[in-house]
Amino acid sequence: MSNAADIAIYDTTLRDGAQREGMALSCADKLRIAQQLDALGIAFIEGGWPASNPKDAELFRRARDVPWRSATLAAFGATRRAGVPAGEDSGLTALLDAGAPVCTLFGKTSLRHVRDVLRTSPDENLAMIEDSVHWLVARGRRVIYDAEHFFDGARDDEAYAHATLRAAARGGAETIVLCDTNGGTLPWEIAQRVHAAALAVPAPIGIHAHDDTGCAVAATLAAVRAGAVHVQGTLNGYGERCGNANLTTIIPALELKLGARCVRPGALLELGRVARLVAETANLGFDEHTPYVGRSAFAHKGGVHVAAQRRSPGAYEHIDPALVGNRTRVVVSELAGRANVRAIADAHALGASDDAHARVLARIKEREADGFAFEAAEASVALMVRRAAPGYAPPFELLDYHVMTGKRAGGEPYADATVKVRIGEELVHTAAEGNGPVSALDRALCKALARFAIDVELLDYKVRIVDGRAGTAAITRVLVDVGDGVERWSTVGAAPSIVEASLCALVDAIEHGIALARTREQQRRTDEGHDRLAAR
Amino acid sequence: MSNAADIAIYDTTLRDGAQREGMALSCADKLRIAQQLDALGIAFIEGGWPASNPKDAELFRRARDVPWRSATLAAFGATRRAGVPAGEDSGLTALLDAGAPVCTLFGKTSLRHVRDVLRTSPDENLAMIEDSVHWLVARGRRVIYDAEHFFDGARDDEAYAHATLRAAARGGAETIVLCDTNGGTLPWEIAQRVHAAALAVPAPIGIHAHDDTGCAVAATLAAVRAGAVHVQGTLNGYGERCGNANLTTIIPALELKLGARCVRPGALLELGRVARLVAETANLGFDEHTPYVGRSAFAHKGGVHVAAQRRSPGAYEHIDPALVGNRTRVVVSELAGRANVRAIADAHALGASDDAHARVLARIKEREADGFAFEAAEASVALMVRRAAPGYAPPFELLDYHVMTGKRAGGEPYADATVKVRIGEELVHTAAEGNGPVSALDRALCKALARFAIDVELLDYKVRIVDGRAGTAAITRVLVDVGDGVERWSTVGAAPSIVEASLCALVDAIEHGIALARTREQQRRTDEGHDRLAAR
Repeated sequence: MSNAADIAIYDTTLRDGAQREGMALSCADKLRIAQQLDALGIAFIEGGWPASNPKDAELFRRARDVPWRSATLAAFGATRRAGVPAGEDSGLTALLDAGAPVCTLFGKTSLRHVRDVLRTSPDENLAMIEDSVHWLVARGRRVIYDAEHFFDGARDDEAYAHATLRAAARGGAETIVLCDTNGGTLPWEIAQRVHAAALAVPAPIGIHAHDDTGCAVAATLAAVRAGAVHVQGTLNGYGERCGNANLTTIIPALELKLGARCVRPGALLELGRVARLVAETANLGFDEHTPYVGRSAFAHKGGVHVAAQRRSPGAYEHIDPALVGNRTRVVVSELAGRANVRAIADAHALGASDDAHARVLARIKEREADGFAFEAAEASVALMVRRAAPGYAPPFELLDYHVMTGKRAGGEPYADATVKVRIGEELVHTAAEGNGPVSALDRALCKALARFAIDVELLDYKVRIVDGRAGTAAITRVLVDVGDGVERWSTVGAAPSIVEASLCALVDAIEHGIALARTREQQRRTDEGHDRLAAR
Repeated sequence: MSNAADIAIYDTTLRDGAQREGMALSCADKLRIAQQLDALGIAFIEGGWPASNPKDAELFRRARDVPWRSATLAAFGATRRAGVPAGEDSGLTALLDAGAPVCTLFGKTSLRHVRDVLRTSPDENLAMIEDSVHWLVARGRRVIYDAEHFFDGARDDEAYAHATLRAAARGGAETIVLCDTNGGTLPWEIAQRVHAAALAVPAPIGIHAHDDTGCAVAATLAAVRAGAVHVQGTLNGYGERCGNANLTTIIPALELKLGARCVRPGALLELGRVARLVAETANLGFDEHTPYVGRSAFAHKGGVHVAAQRRSPGAYEHIDPALVGNRTRVVVSELAGRANVRAIADAHALGASDDAHARVLARIKEREADGFAFEAAEASVALMVRRAAPGYAPPFELLDYHVMTGKRAGGEPYADATVKVRIGEELVHTAAEGNGPVSALDRALCKALARFAIDVELLDYKVRIVDGRAGTAAITRVLVDVGDGVERWSTVGAAPSIVEASLCALVDAIEHGIALARTREQQRRTDEGHDRLAAR
């Protein structure tokens, strides 16, 4: 087991992570992510491969003006080409020119790759490794050496694999990283080979795992137990093929399970936020089932588990969710009982009888059969509880809507919407235009409801086809996230038409917003009343 | 290491998997999935918990009429309540009544749970386990015993934990399954405790892992190496919180990496199809980065990897993808070079010059900046290659479109669309209605293009908001999957308006379909010509 204070985390989200299919990051995206990683206290941030991507060269230029708190920026590159002196290798000079304090060089460990891919001799490969590391070290760079295909190479010829590591150490590499480049090595073999390499090479050892067997996290933790003190990975496990080792999962394990310090104190509480920000920046959905930080990571749905958690908090949780800024949740679904609806009613300070809760539950089941899904739309459930209360009058009612959208040859697309809304005894009939049918309706609705003086902003909008096999005639489910600057909430709508489904979710979102604003207003008046009483 | 031929796979997708947040399966869904599992040669299928869910009782009734090939159905339930004789426990009688040949009983291993959740004595818990197993065995059932919280319990008091296992063995359980119910135990501890339990208990040992540390697959494989011969898990790793151990990943590892036989010969080739079918049935997106079976599992994006794979096939692959019915892919993206575009042109038998490929690449980069994403829309790329060829004339051109959609109080929603299309010299102007704006447009377009006599059916339709933060005014990206009964292809569209984006993808899908039909027709004529020549 390594010393508790010195596992260096090396993040390669911006370089190896960006190899993920479906992922593209601009230079501004990369800088934004790098600054978040720096704030977490990640030791090394690999910015990119300047010789292979002009965007990455720009990143290193712009990074010089960023006031990094503690992270060290690393630039990635390959050892020199066969038969070319280091000083004449354009890749190495580009790496030096990037100006990052750390250069991470990858080289070949496997004789198969030396022969078939590099097409050079085993001895020249050793010289390429030593020369390249030495050339950069002689020019004032710290060098981390990534031994590509280490585990496959060592399986074929361990003596040669270790010789490549020693070549890097002779060149002056400060850390030697063993890469399971193809991701096929299982954790017990990783542990055994890390242990053997640590004995064979006079340098600190690192681990770089890929998730092709679904074991990258376990392999990384096994390597740390076997002596690795440097861990490479990516946030959310992004990376080529099945992805890299997921730092979002590894960091809490190192800190909470292995007792190793690897990030700034308090950083665990921020990890989920940063992981989501990276997903959002990359335009990828965040997997809410992610260990430790996912919204579902401590969510209980089964009635037995919910009941046991009530008797013994933590009975079905492996750690206290608060340690990673998460919380225990009870999920509302068709499997749920009245207790789950009551939990939501309580969370929103809504009373209502057991009978009302039973009616809400029946309504939930009915609507779920129609394609709704309430698990991510707590505000729609809270609204159903409100509506079930005797005497509840909705603040407004949408009567009619019409949208016209289209494009004439050579022209710009247009979208116009009209809405007719009843507010108390009055009818409001108005119109607005937008970029598409949904934004036109959203604007028309906000215009019609201007008198409520609430400022509900649409923050996110997600569309799912519930039954993909029936194509556009299937049910469309829309989830809407909105906020009013004070709170943020989510609602759901479902219908065969995307416009109808969107409106259904928007109406819920606005009605819930009006209720929230009223509750806050009442609270303010009550507080003022208390203040007046206290001032007497 | 266990005997290669006897790892029994126990699938609990239908019971523990359905605890996943966002997952709901009807009785028909469950039967459909169970039959697919049976075809794979999965040894045990856990159908549900008859005492807790009336849907599950129905499943067991209907399952009696299904001609199972080789799978054994299991019903799940708890040991009898404290102080109640087994024969008077409603849960046990419901379990017996389900009529499944195997009953899987879970009981408490951890003294904390015995005290705080069951609120009974350690001795009564042992009696509850032995009695309940024995009562079912005496009535002709095979019993598998799930030791809930085994690893947490053994960490607190190993002697008592082992005593609970021995109680189950005395009752007649045929297999004792060690459950890491809270999912917090790391693989090396799993291995050590499985080994100790196997020595302490005279019965075959199984493993049931959860993914709360992202190590469920590794923990399961470690347990098998330590002597477990029975593996519980779910397809796609569905399950409560972070999910259960993912059988989609474990089965290939057992067969290909550990040399253990656990499914029918040839089943590995079907695994990806079944995993997607389960996702589709559950209305959940399939993770295409899943090890072994994901579309991205052997996809290469980085230029260096693509080049090395060409020099040495398999250089960046841990197994031959064909073993799991998968294939090597090259991904087109803004990082891609001309070689990637050429690979797609070749796959579609499109010639075109290097210069044309360079123009297509430039166009791809331009459109990706506008919000398009071509990685999952190969047909849109193929179409760009066609359009870049000199003399290509599109079979039709969409000039104008208009959609009206809305609802009047008390009425049904309506959606009418008109399209004006140029086909050669002729203008076709027509209209159709649909469930929503997109289906109305799809129908109007098909009507206008009826003369091409192609039958393009919309199979799936996916919508993404590219920048969620700007709400409905953000770019909407639509991916369309279509088929014509012979082939299946995907296209992409992106625009601020969902209607505009959908149309863009639909037009590509139809234009590609017309090209495909023409190519097939030419091929047919050529073949006929050859046949005529051969017949002379």
